[in-house]
Amino acid sequence: MITLNKIAELVDGTITGDGETQIKGMAPPDFAQEGDITFALDKKGLKQAEKSKASSILTTEGGGNYSKTLLHVKDMKLAMTILYNTLLEVKPPGEGIVHLSAIIAENVVLGENVSIGPNVVIGENTRIGDNANVGANCVIGKDIEIGRKTYIYPNVTLYDHVVIGSNVCIHAGTVIGADGFGYIPKDGKIYKVPQMGKVIIEDDVEIGANTCIDRGTFIDTVIGKGTKIDNLVQIAHNVKLDRNVLLAAQVGIAGSTTVGENTMMGGQVGVADHATIGKNVKLAAKSGVSGRVKDNSVLFGYPSRDSQETKRLYRLLSMMTKNKEKLKAFLKTLPDDQE
Amino acid sequence: MITLNKIAELVDGTITGDGETQIKGMAPPDFAQEGDITFALDKKGLKQAEKSKASSILTTEGGGNYSKTLLHVKDMKLAMTILYNTLLEVKPPGEGIVHLSAIIAENVVLGENVSIGPNVVIGENTRIGDNANVGANCVIGKDIEIGRKTYIYPNVTLYDHVVIGSNVCIHAGTVIGADGFGYIPKDGKIYKVPQMGKVIIEDDVEIGANTCIDRGTFIDTVIGKGTKIDNLVQIAHNVKLDRNVLLAAQVGIAGSTTVGENTMMGGQVGVADHATIGKNVKLAAKSGVSGRVKDNSVLFGYPSRDSQETKRLYRLLSMMTKNKEKLKAFLKTLPDDQE
Amino acid sequence: MITLNKIAELVDGTITGDGETQIKGMAPPDFAQEGDITFALDKKGLKQAEKSKASSILTTEGGGNYSKTLLHVKDMKLAMTILYNTLLEVKPPGEGIVHLSAIIAENVVLGENVSIGPNVVIGENTRIGDNANVGANCVIGKDIEIGRKTYIYPNVTLYDHVVIGSNVCIHAGTVIGADGFGYIPKDGKIYKVPQMGKVIIEDDVEIGANTCIDRGTFIDTVIGKGTKIDNLVQIAHNVKLDRNVLLAAQVGIAGSTTVGENTMMGGQVGVADHATIGKNVKLAAKSGVSGRVKDNSVLFGYPSRDSQETKRLYRLLSMMTKNKEKLKAFLKTLPDDQE
Repeated sequence: MITLNKIAELVDGTITGDGETQIKGMAPPDFAQEGDITFALDKKGLKQAEKSKASSILTTEGGGNYSKTLLHVKDMKLAMTILYNTLLEVKPPGEGIVHLSAIIAENVVLGENVSIGPNVVIGENTRIGDNANVGANCVIGKDIEIGRKTYIYPNVTLYDHVVIGSNVCIHAGTVIGADGFGYIPKDGKIYKVPQMGKVIIEDDVEIGANTCIDRGTFIDTVIGKGTKIDNLVQIAHNVKLDRNVLLAAQVGIAGSTTVGENTMMGGQVGVADHATIGKNVKLAAKSGVSGRVKDNSVLFGYPSRDSQETKRLYRLLSMMTKNKEKLKAFLKTLPDDQE
Repeated sequence: MITLNKIAELVDGTITGDGETQIKGMAPPDFAQEGDITFALDKKGLKQAEKSKASSILTTEGGGNYSKTLLHVKDMKLAMTILYNTLLEVKPPGEGIVHLSAIIAENVVLGENVSIGPNVVIGENTRIGDNANVGANCVIGKDIEIGRKTYIYPNVTLYDHVVIGSNVCIHAGTVIGADGFGYIPKDGKIYKVPQMGKVIIEDDVEIGANTCIDRGTFIDTVIGKGTKIDNLVQIAHNVKLDRNVLLAAQVGIAGSTTVGENTMMGGQVGVADHATIGKNVKLAAKSGVSGRVKDNSVLFGYPSRDSQETKRLYRLLSMMTKNKEKLKAFLKTLPDDQE
Repeated sequence: MITLNKIAELVDGTITGDGETQIKGMAPPDFAQEGDITFALDKKGLKQAEKSKASSILTTEGGGNYSKTLLHVKDMKLAMTILYNTLLEVKPPGEGIVHLSAIIAENVVLGENVSIGPNVVIGENTRIGDNANVGANCVIGKDIEIGRKTYIYPNVTLYDHVVIGSNVCIHAGTVIGADGFGYIPKDGKIYKVPQMGKVIIEDDVEIGANTCIDRGTFIDTVIGKGTKIDNLVQIAHNVKLDRNVLLAAQVGIAGSTTVGENTMMGGQVGVADHATIGKNVKLAAKSGVSGRVKDNSVLFGYPSRDSQETKRLYRLLSMMTKNKEKLKAFLKTLPDDQE
C-alpha cells in the first residue's frame, strides 16, 4: 500500500481530496476495486470513473466537486507509467498456488510462492525461482532455469535447456528454444545441422505473444538484460541482442547477427544473417538491413540507407516520376549503353 | 435439412435426378456422409464423388448417367459459398458437451448448448453465449464475454477482460488481449507503460491462426463487425478497425491507427502508428503506409504511393537501369551539387 | 551404438585415443552423458568438454594430452551434421509412453512405440504410425494420418483431415489445416467461401514454430517431400510446394501458388497468389514476387527483378541521389510532360 500523497510526489501531481488515501493497485473503471486508483482521460471518463469502485482517480482534468479523491497530472502516460512501476515494487507476491492438474516431474525445484496454472507440464531437472508464475497450459521442458518473479502467460512452450532470468515476462503462445533453421543440401537430399546451443534470456526482458526465439547451433542465443520484444518476432539461432534493445512486432533477425545496446527496430524490419548492428541504432519500420551498421546510425529503406538519404531518394523518385516523359525522351537522345 | 430444389434456386443451378433429395451438410468426397452434398471440379472428380457416401454432387460438368443426383452450376466457388452460408443457417446447434477435464471457475456463466473442449481453462466472471464452442486446450481469462454461436478453435489464449460478439470465429493459436508494446526509456532503464484497455471484437468477425490482437493502453482496441483477419497478423494497442475490413496474412498495424470500413490490405502490409486509413482503401501486398490515406485510395509500394504512380515509377526505374551507362556519363557532364 | 572409428570414417576425421569407443548420442558439454560425443569449438571449449560426462569430443583443435578420446575434423558444422544424421539412423525408438492424461478417442489407431505427451487430445479415426511422438498439450483433430517416426513438439494444432508423412518434424505452436482466407463481398456483407480441402505433408518435411499451413479450398494444400519451413511462415490455401524447398522465417505464400523443387526463399519474402515459381529459384530476403518465375532465376527486390539488375538499379539510385540537385536543375531545362 502507498498513500496518494506519496504517489502525487512521484508523478508531480496535485490532489483534490484526501491525500492519505491508501492505494494498492490500478485498474480501468470497469474492473477497479476498493483501494485501486483508476484513470479518466476526459470529462466523460471522469463521470464514468466516479461510478467505479476505485478509491481515487488519476486525471488530466481540473478539479471540481467529485465524490472521489482526484490526482491531477499533466502527462497521463508518464504518470501512469511511473505509478504502474511503483505499484509493481510494492505489490505483494502471488498466491503461490500449484494447480492440481499440473504435471510436474519429480525432481523439479519450485521456489517460494511459485504459481503454476492448470495443465502445465514441467520436465525433469527444471528449477523455478521465488514468486514466479507459469500460466495455464504452458509446456516447460527439462533442464530449464526460470528466475525470480518471472511471469509466463498461458500456452507458452519452452524447449529443454532454456535459461531465463528474473523479472522476465513472456506473453502467450511464444516458443523459446526450438531448433534453428540450418541445413546442408547434398546429393539431392537436405541434411539437418544439429542445433545444440541454449537460449539465454537475461533479467527484465519482456517478450510478446507468438514470438519465436531459436536455440543456438553450437553456441547460445542470448537476449540481453532489459530488452523488450514485441509479438510475432523471429530471433534465429546464435543471435545476440545486447541490453535494452527494442524490437517492434514482426521483426525478423537472421542467424548469428549481433545487435548493440539501446538499438530500436520498427515493425517488420528484417536483418540478414551474420550482420553486426551497433549501439543506439534506429531502423525504421520495414527496413531491410545487412552487413555492419555503425553506432548511432538511423537507417531506413530496403536495402537500408541513412534515413535522410533515403528520404532524399524518395523525393527524387517522385520528381522523376512526374517528369517521366521528359526523361524518356531525353534518354533517347543519348548514345546507347555499351555493356 | 433443405431440399436440392431449394438449393438449385439459391445457386441458380439445374438438377439431374431427384430434386426432393434432403441435404443436411456439405463435405469433400472422402468425408461426405449420407445426406451431404459433395462437389466435383471435373470429370475425374465426378467419378470420385460418385463413389462417396454423399447424396448429391455439385458440379460444373454437364449431365449424364450417374448413380447420384447432380446439381449443375456455372460458378463453383460462388455456388459453394452460397450453399455453405445457407447450410450454416439451417445447421442444428452443437452437442453442448462440456468436457469433464475442463477447469471452469465457479461463477462462470455458460449459455444453452455451449461446447467446451478438453483441458480448457476458464477464469472467474466469464460469460459464454448460447451455442458457442471453445476448442480443446484454450485458455480463457476472467471477466470475459463471448457471444452466441462464437466458435473458438484449439489452443487460443484470451487474456482477461476481452469482449467478443456473436458469430465470431477465432482460429487456433491466436492470442487476444496481450499487453501492447509501450515503454518509456529513462536513465538507462526502460519502463513499461501499463496496458489497461480491453479488446472488443464485434459480431461476425473471423480471425485466422496465430494472430495477435493487443489490448489498448487506456482506451480499447476494437475490431469492427464483419471484419476478417488472416493468419499471423499483428494488431497493436488502440487500433480501431471499422466494419468489413479484410486483412491478409502477416499484415501489421501499429498502435492507435484507425482503418475505415471495407478497406482491404494484401499480405505483409505494414501500417505505421497513429495513421488514419480511409474507407474502401486498397493497399497492395507488402506496402508500407503511414499518415492519412483518403477514402477509395489504391496504394502500392514502400513508402506507398498511388498504385498507378508506383507502377509508372517502376517502369521508369527499369528503363533507367537499362540506360545506366548513358545516365552515368551524362551526369558527369553536369555541374556538381552544392549541398 | 556406433564406434568412433566408424564415425571418423564418415566425417573424414582422425582419432587421438581409443577408436573402439562406443557412441550412442551427441550433446553439448553441459548435458552430455556417458556414451555421448560432445564438441569443442576452440581450446577453451575443449577444457570445458573434458569436464563433461561425454565419452569423446569432436573438435577442430589438434591433439594433445587429454583425458578423453578426441575426434579431429576440419569442418565442424559438416562433421556435426553427418554425425547427427547417422546417429538418427541408429537411434533406438522412443519409450512409447502414452501419458494417462491424454484424451484419445476410442477408435484412434496408435502404431508400435508411439509416445503421446500429457494433455494431448486426439479426435476420432486418427491413425498414428510406429515410433511417432506427439508433444504435450497438442490438439490433433479427427480423420488424421500421421506417419512413422514423425515428431510433433508441444502445443501444435492439427485440424481435421490433415495427412502427414513419415519422418516429419513439426515445431511448437504450429497450426496446420486452418481455413484458408477466402470471402465473397456482396451487398455490404462478406460471405465466407467454404474451405474443404486437406493439407498433405509428405515425408521428411520439417516445419518451424508458430507457422501456419492452411487447408485447401476445394483441392489440397501440399508440402513436398524433404521441404523445410522455418518459423512464423504463412502457407495459404491450395499452395503446392514441390520437393526440397527451403523457406526461411516469416515467408508468406499466398493462395494457389506453386513452387518448384529446390527453390529457396530468404526471410520475409512474399509471393503473390496464383504465382508459378520454377525449380532451383533463389528469392533474396524480403523480395516481393508475383507471376511466373523461370527455373534457376535469382531474384531480389520488391517488385522483384533479376538479382544483378536490382543491384545495378540500387547503385544507380545511389549515384542519382548524390547528384540530386544537378538532376533537378537539368529536369527544369526539359519541356513539360504532356500527359
